[in-house]
Amino acid sequence: MKLVHDPIHGHIELDDFAVRLVDTPEFQRLRRITQLGLAFLAYPSARHTRFEHSLGTFHLAKEIRRYNPELEEGVIYAALLHDLGHYPFSHTLEGIYPKHEENMRWLIRHGEIGEVLGERYSRSEMERFLKHPVVSGDIDADRMDYLVRDAYYTGAAYGIVDLERLIRNLRWTEGKLVLLEKGITAGQSLLLARAMMYPTVYFHHTARIAGAMLAKAVELEGIPLEEMRRMDEIDLVARLRRSERREVRELITAVDSRRLYKRVVWSAEPLEEDLLDELRRELEAEFGHLVLIDYPPKPKFEEKNAFVLVGGELKRLSDVSPLVRSLFELKDTHWRWGIYARADVKEAVRSFVSGLIG
Amino acid sequence: MKLVHDPIHGHIELDDFAVRLVDTPEFQRLRRITQLGLAFLAYPSARHTRFEHSLGTFHLAKEIRRYNPELEEGVIYAALLHDLGHYPFSHTLEGIYPKHEENMRWLIRHGEIGEVLGERYSRSEMERFLKHPVVSGDIDADRMDYLVRDAYYTGAAYGIVDLERLIRNLRWTEGKLVLLEKGITAGQSLLLARAMMYPTVYFHHTARIAGAMLAKAVELEGIPLEEMRRMDEIDLVARLRRSERREVRELITAVDSRRLYKRVVWSAEPLEEDLLDELRRELEAEFGHLVLIDYPPKPKFEEKNAFVLVGGELKRLSDVSPLVRSLFELKDTHWRWGIYARADVKEAVRSFVSGLIG
Amino acid sequence: MKLVHDPIHGHIELDDFAVRLVDTPEFQRLRRITQLGLAFLAYPSARHTRFEHSLGTFHLAKEIRRYNPELEEGVIYAALLHDLGHYPFSHTLEGIYPKHEENMRWLIRHGEIGEVLGERYSRSEMERFLKHPVVSGDIDADRMDYLVRDAYYTGAAYGIVDLERLIRNLRWTEGKLVLLEKGITAGQSLLLARAMMYPTVYFHHTARIAGAMLAKAVELEGIPLEEMRRMDEIDLVARLRRSERREVRELITAVDSRRLYKRVVWSAEPLEEDLLDELRRELEAEFGHLVLIDYPPKPKFEEKNAFVLVGGELKRLSDVSPLVRSLFELKDTHWRWGIYARADVKEAVRSFVSGLIG
Amino acid sequence: MKLVHDPIHGHIELDDFAVRLVDTPEFQRLRRITQLGLAFLAYPSARHTRFEHSLGTFHLAKEIRRYNPELEEGVIYAALLHDLGHYPFSHTLEGIYPKHEENMRWLIRHGEIGEVLGERYSRSEMERFLKHPVVSGDIDADRMDYLVRDAYYTGAAYGIVDLERLIRNLRWTEGKLVLLEKGITAGQSLLLARAMMYPTVYFHHTARIAGAMLAKAVELEGIPLEEMRRMDEIDLVARLRRSERREVRELITAVDSRRLYKRVVWSAEPLEEDLLDELRRELEAEFGHLVLIDYPPKPKFEEKNAFVLVGGELKRLSDVSPLVRSLFELKDTHWRWGIYARADVKEAVRSFVSGLIG
Repeated sequence: MKLVHDPIHGHIELDDFAVRLVDTPEFQRLRRITQLGLAFLAYPSARHTRFEHSLGTFHLAKEIRRYNPELEEGVIYAALLHDLGHYPFSHTLEGIYPKHEENMRWLIRHGEIGEVLGERYSRSEMERFLKHPVVSGDIDADRMDYLVRDAYYTGAAYGIVDLERLIRNLRWTEGKLVLLEKGITAGQSLLLARAMMYPTVYFHHTARIAGAMLAKAVELEGIPLEEMRRMDEIDLVARLRRSERREVRELITAVDSRRLYKRVVWSAEPLEEDLLDELRRELEAEFGHLVLIDYPPKPKFEEKNAFVLVGGELKRLSDVSPLVRSLFELKDTHWRWGIYARADVKEAVRSFVSGLIG
Repeated sequence: MKLVHDPIHGHIELDDFAVRLVDTPEFQRLRRITQLGLAFLAYPSARHTRFEHSLGTFHLAKEIRRYNPELEEGVIYAALLHDLGHYPFSHTLEGIYPKHEENMRWLIRHGEIGEVLGERYSRSEMERFLKHPVVSGDIDADRMDYLVRDAYYTGAAYGIVDLERLIRNLRWTEGKLVLLEKGITAGQSLLLARAMMYPTVYFHHTARIAGAMLAKAVELEGIPLEEMRRMDEIDLVARLRRSERREVRELITAVDSRRLYKRVVWSAEPLEEDLLDELRRELEAEFGHLVLIDYPPKPKFEEKNAFVLVGGELKRLSDVSPLVRSLFELKDTHWRWGIYARADVKEAVRSFVSGLIG
Repeated sequence: MKLVHDPIHGHIELDDFAVRLVDTPEFQRLRRITQLGLAFLAYPSARHTRFEHSLGTFHLAKEIRRYNPELEEGVIYAALLHDLGHYPFSHTLEGIYPKHEENMRWLIRHGEIGEVLGERYSRSEMERFLKHPVVSGDIDADRMDYLVRDAYYTGAAYGIVDLERLIRNLRWTEGKLVLLEKGITAGQSLLLARAMMYPTVYFHHTARIAGAMLAKAVELEGIPLEEMRRMDEIDLVARLRRSERREVRELITAVDSRRLYKRVVWSAEPLEEDLLDELRRELEAEFGHLVLIDYPPKPKFEEKNAFVLVGGELKRLSDVSPLVRSLFELKDTHWRWGIYARADVKEAVRSFVSGLIG
Repeated sequence: MKLVHDPIHGHIELDDFAVRLVDTPEFQRLRRITQLGLAFLAYPSARHTRFEHSLGTFHLAKEIRRYNPELEEGVIYAALLHDLGHYPFSHTLEGIYPKHEENMRWLIRHGEIGEVLGERYSRSEMERFLKHPVVSGDIDADRMDYLVRDAYYTGAAYGIVDLERLIRNLRWTEGKLVLLEKGITAGQSLLLARAMMYPTVYFHHTARIAGAMLAKAVELEGIPLEEMRRMDEIDLVARLRRSERREVRELITAVDSRRLYKRVVWSAEPLEEDLLDELRRELEAEFGHLVLIDYPPKPKFEEKNAFVLVGGELKRLSDVSPLVRSLFELKDTHWRWGIYARADVKEAVRSFVSGLIG
C-alpha cells in the first residue's frame, strides 16, 4: 500500500495492484499531459495533469464502492486508467486523431501496462469496466474529480461540489448508479459547477485559439497516429519546434510566446456544413496557416439522464429538478465557433470572410 | 491594465509596462520551468511554474509598496523578473551552471526583455532594484509567495502564512524593510512555514534523487551555458532523450518513468572535503553514471536577521523571538547528503563505499 | 483606525467614525443576534451573528466604493448599520413585529448611536443612504456578505461567489449600480449560490419548526414592541424561561432541548386565505399551543432586475442571462408551508386537519 | 444513524447511541457554551460552541479507532461527552468553581444523560474511558479538533494541522497511543499550531480582561456550584443583568457593551505568592470591583511526552524532535499576569500599585 498526497482529496491510498499499474511508463506518461491543454495561457496556474486526475478518479471510485461493496473491484482500476489514451494537451487534438477512449483501448492491450492488467483481467472484462456507470456515466467519478480539481487549479470559484454528500447518496441498484433523494441538491451542484466552468474555463477563447493553432501545426507536420499515441507534450512540442516546415515552426513559436491569432469571427450562430466546408477551402487557399476555423461540437449534457430514487421510484434527474431541466435548455448558450487570424492579416481575412458569409 | 486570475491572490493586476514585460518570449519561457523542479515525482500535484510565482511576487511587492508608497516603482518590476534566469527544473542544475541570479542579470540585458526594460531603467538601476530588500531580503515578496504557493500546490498543510497581517506590518524606514511589533507573530509564521516545508517538500528524497539523476545526464551531455541559459524544460528533456550517449538516454528514461536510483547512503554527518572528492573519483571510476553523490549546501536562514521595530528601537527578529532563535539552531536538522545507485548495483556500491568511509 | 480579523474577508479596516458607531451599546447588541436564527439546530456550526455580518457588509461597501469613488461616503456607514434593527433570532419574529428595517430606522434616531450618527448625517440623509443600491439593491454588499458567510459557517458548499470579480465589475452610473459584461458570470454565481442556499439552509424545515415554536412562545408572552426592539437573545430567552405561562415555558424548553414539533402538513400547494384563517382558528381552538401553522411569504428574487451594461446598453440581467430567467421561474420551487404539532398530538392533528382540508 | 454537517470534518456520522446521548438536555446545553468564552470580543467570528467541538472530537476518536479497531468502543462516547461539564464561557470561571472535568463526572451520573449512559456503561468504565489517551492524552482527539476548529472560526491562520496524516500514524500499542515515524511532522504541526494559537488567540488580552470582569461579577453574585453546574450562558448573563448588586450589573453591562477595563500591569515576571495575596487584599480594600487581578496558571505542554515509535523503539517526541524541545522551552514566553482597572481609576490604581510592587 502506498499513500499519495493530493490537495483535493488529502491522501490517496494505492493498493499494490494500483501501484504496479501506476509504475508503468504508459501511466507515468500522463504526468506530461496537462489536464486542461492550453488553458494555462488564460489561467496560468492550471498546470495540473491527467496523472493527478487519474489518481483522484480512482480514489472517488473507491469511495463509491465503499458505500456499494457489491460493485466489482475491476471498476476502480478502470477508473484509474480511463484517461490513459489522452494525446498531448488533452482534447486539443481530438479533431485530428481518434477519440482518446479509442487510443486507451489500444494502449491497455500493449506494453507493460497491458502485461500487468492481463494478470488479473481479460480484455473484455476491462472493456466492460471502462463503460461502467461509475467510470463513464451520467454522474461519475471522472466528472466529480475534474470539476473540483479544475476549479482548484484555475482558482475559478465555480467548481465547488459537495462530493461527500453526493457519494454517500449514490446507490448501485438494478445495474444502475442511482442518486438517492437526499443527494439531489449535491447532484445539482455538480451540474451547476459544470455549467459555470464551461464558459469560464473550458470554452475560454484564449485556450480555444491556442488549441486551434497547435492543431494546425500538428496537421501540417503530419504525425501518424502510431507515433502520436505514445507521445507526451515534450515529444510533441520538441518535434514541432524542429520541424522542417516553416509554418509549423512559426505556429509553435507563436503558441510558446503566447502571440496568439485574433478573433475575426466569434459566433453563436451555427453554420451549414456546406458553407463551413467552403469556408475552410477558400480560407485555406487564400491564407494558408495564417487563418484557422474552429468549429467545436456542441457540449453534451448527459447528467440530466441520471437516475434518482424518489419515494421508491426511479426517475430521471431532469424530471424531478426544474433547475436541471433549465440547465439542459441552456447547454448551448456558451457554444461559439470562431475564425482566427494572425494579427497582420486580420483585416484582410475579415473582408474576405464577409464576402463569403455576409 | 490586465487582470490575471490566480488561486493564491485572487486577481493580479498587471499595468501596461508589466504586460509588456510579461509578453516577451523570455518571460513566457517561465511557463515551462516548474517551480519545484522534480518534486512532482513525490507530490504529483506540484506542477506550478516560475511564471505564476513571478506574477505572485510582483503582486506582493505592489502590496508592500501600497503601505510604503515612498518605495521606488522599479522595485515591483524587479520582483516580477527576479526568477527570469532559472534553468529548467529550477534549482536542480545550479550545481553545474552559475546561479540563476547571474543568468538573470545576463538575460535582462539581451533580447526583447532587455529592450523593453531599457526604455525605463538603466542596467545599474535594475541591478539595484533586484537587490532591494523587498525582492531579495530577509522577509521578502519572493519568500512570501513561494511558501504559500508551494503549500497550495503540494497540498502540504504547512505553508500557511498570514500574508495580509505580515504585509500590513512591514515598513520601509532608514533604508530597511522593518517588521512592526504587531507583525511578529505573522513573521514567525513565515519562518515556521519554511521550517516545515524543508523536510516535507524541499528536501524530499525522491526529488533529490531524481534531481541528481537529471544533473548527471546534463553533465554527461555537456550542454554549454550559452545554450542552457535560454532552454526550457521541453528543450532540455527532448535533447537528453535523443542524446547520442546511451547513459544520458538511460538516465532521462529512468526519470521519465520514475524508475529512480536507490539510497545507499543518507546521512546527516558532514564529510570532509578531501574524502568527498576521493569518493567522487573512486565511485565514478568504478560505476560511472550508475552511482551519484548528492552533497547539497546547508540551508541558510537569513530571515532571523530581519529587523523588528520594538518600542521605537530596531532589533533583530532573532533577538526578540526565542522561537526564531530555536529555528535557527535547528536549521541543519533536516540536511542530508546521499549516495544513490541504480537498483541492480546497489549492493555492490554499498560494499564499495563501506570500504572507503567505513 | 482599527483592524478586525475576519475569516471571510481577512482584515476589516474600521476608520475612527466606524469605530465610534461600533462601540455603541446598540451596535454591540448585534453580537447577541444570530445571523441565521435557529438554523443552528440543523447546522450546529451556524453560530455567526449580525455583528460580523454588519462589519463584512461595511467592508464590501467600501470595496465597491474603492472602484467607484464618486459614491457618497455615508453609504458605507449605512451598510454598517443596515441590520441594526434585527430582533432576537433575526427573521424569526418578523411575522409578529414590524420588519427589522423599520425598527432600525427608529433605533438610529435614539440612544448613543443616534448621537454619534447625528454629528455627521441628518436623518433624511441616512434614510437615503440606507435605501442606496449598494446597501439595499438587486446585487448589494449585504447579499454578497451573507451568502459567502452563511456558506462558510454552515459548511454548505453552495455559497461560493467570486466576490472580487463581482465587485471589480460593478459601476455606479446614472444613479444605478450596474454590472459590467465581464462580471456577468460572477453575478450569476451570486444568484446560483442563493438558489442553492434557500432549500439547503434558509428553508430548512428544522429551523422553520423551531422558529414557529419560538414565535408562538413570544406571541403568548405578549412582549410589546417597545421592549422587544432593544432585546437581545439573552433577554428574550431568559424572559420566556421564567414566564408565568406554562405554555411559554414548555415551548422554550422544547426549543432549548431540540424536542421539536413534528410535521403534519408540509406542502408546496398554496392555500386560499379564507381557508388558512379558518385553519388557524379551528386548530387554535382545538389544540392551543400544541399545533402551529407556518405560512411564510414566497421568496422574492430581485436580483434578476440588476442592470447590466452590454455593448454600451443598459439591460436587465434576466434579459441577457437565460440561467437567471430560469432561476426566476424556479424561485418558488422550494417554498413550503407547514402545520407542526407536538409529537403526542400529531395523529390527532392529522385527522382533524384532513377533516378540514381534505 | 444520523449525519451532521460540519465545516471542519464534512459530515459527522452519529450512530443511534450517540444520537440518544446528543438528544439529552444536558448535551443540548453545550449549544449555549461558547468554545472560546469571551474571545469573540477580540475575534468577532469566534462564536462556535462546545456542542460542535464535542461532535468533532467524537468524529476524530472514531477515525483513530478506524485505524485501531482493538480500542474499546466506549472511548468514542467518552470523547463525545468529555466537555459536558463546562461552565458558561468555558474556562473563564474555572478559577472560582471546580475544574470542568469534575463537574462532568457529576453530570454524567445524573439526569437523562446519566440514564442513557447507564444502559451501556458502568460509572467506573466511563471514568476509565474519559482518561483514555484518545480522549485525554498528549496527542488526543480533543486537541486535534479544537486547534483546527478555533483557527477556522477565528480566521487565525495558525491552526492548520494535517489531521489525516496524524491520525493515520497513530497506533494503539502496549496501552499507549503511539505516533509512527511517518507522522512526526504532522505531530509537530499540531504542537506548532498550539504554540501559535496561544499568544494570538487563547491569551489575547481582550478576552483575558473581559473574562476577569465576568469572573468578578460571578464572584460578587455568589452563585453556588449547585446552580452553576447546569447553567448555560443565557441563564448566567440574565442572572447577572438583574442582580440586586449594582457592581454586578455594572460589570456585566460593561462586558456586554465591550467597555473593558484597562491594563495597569501586564507582566511576564512572576510574583511571589505572598505579595500576590497582599496585592489582592489591598486593591480590593481600596478599589473594590473597579480593579481586577488576573494571575493565570502557566500553560502545560504535555504533548512533548507523546510516544513515538522510531525504528521499533518507543521514544518521547521531545527526544526525537529538537523543534518540540525548543517549543517546550518557550512554553512560558507568552504567559502574562495583569492588573486591570476601570478607565476612570486607571491612574489612581497605577500609583497605588507602584507603591506596593515598585
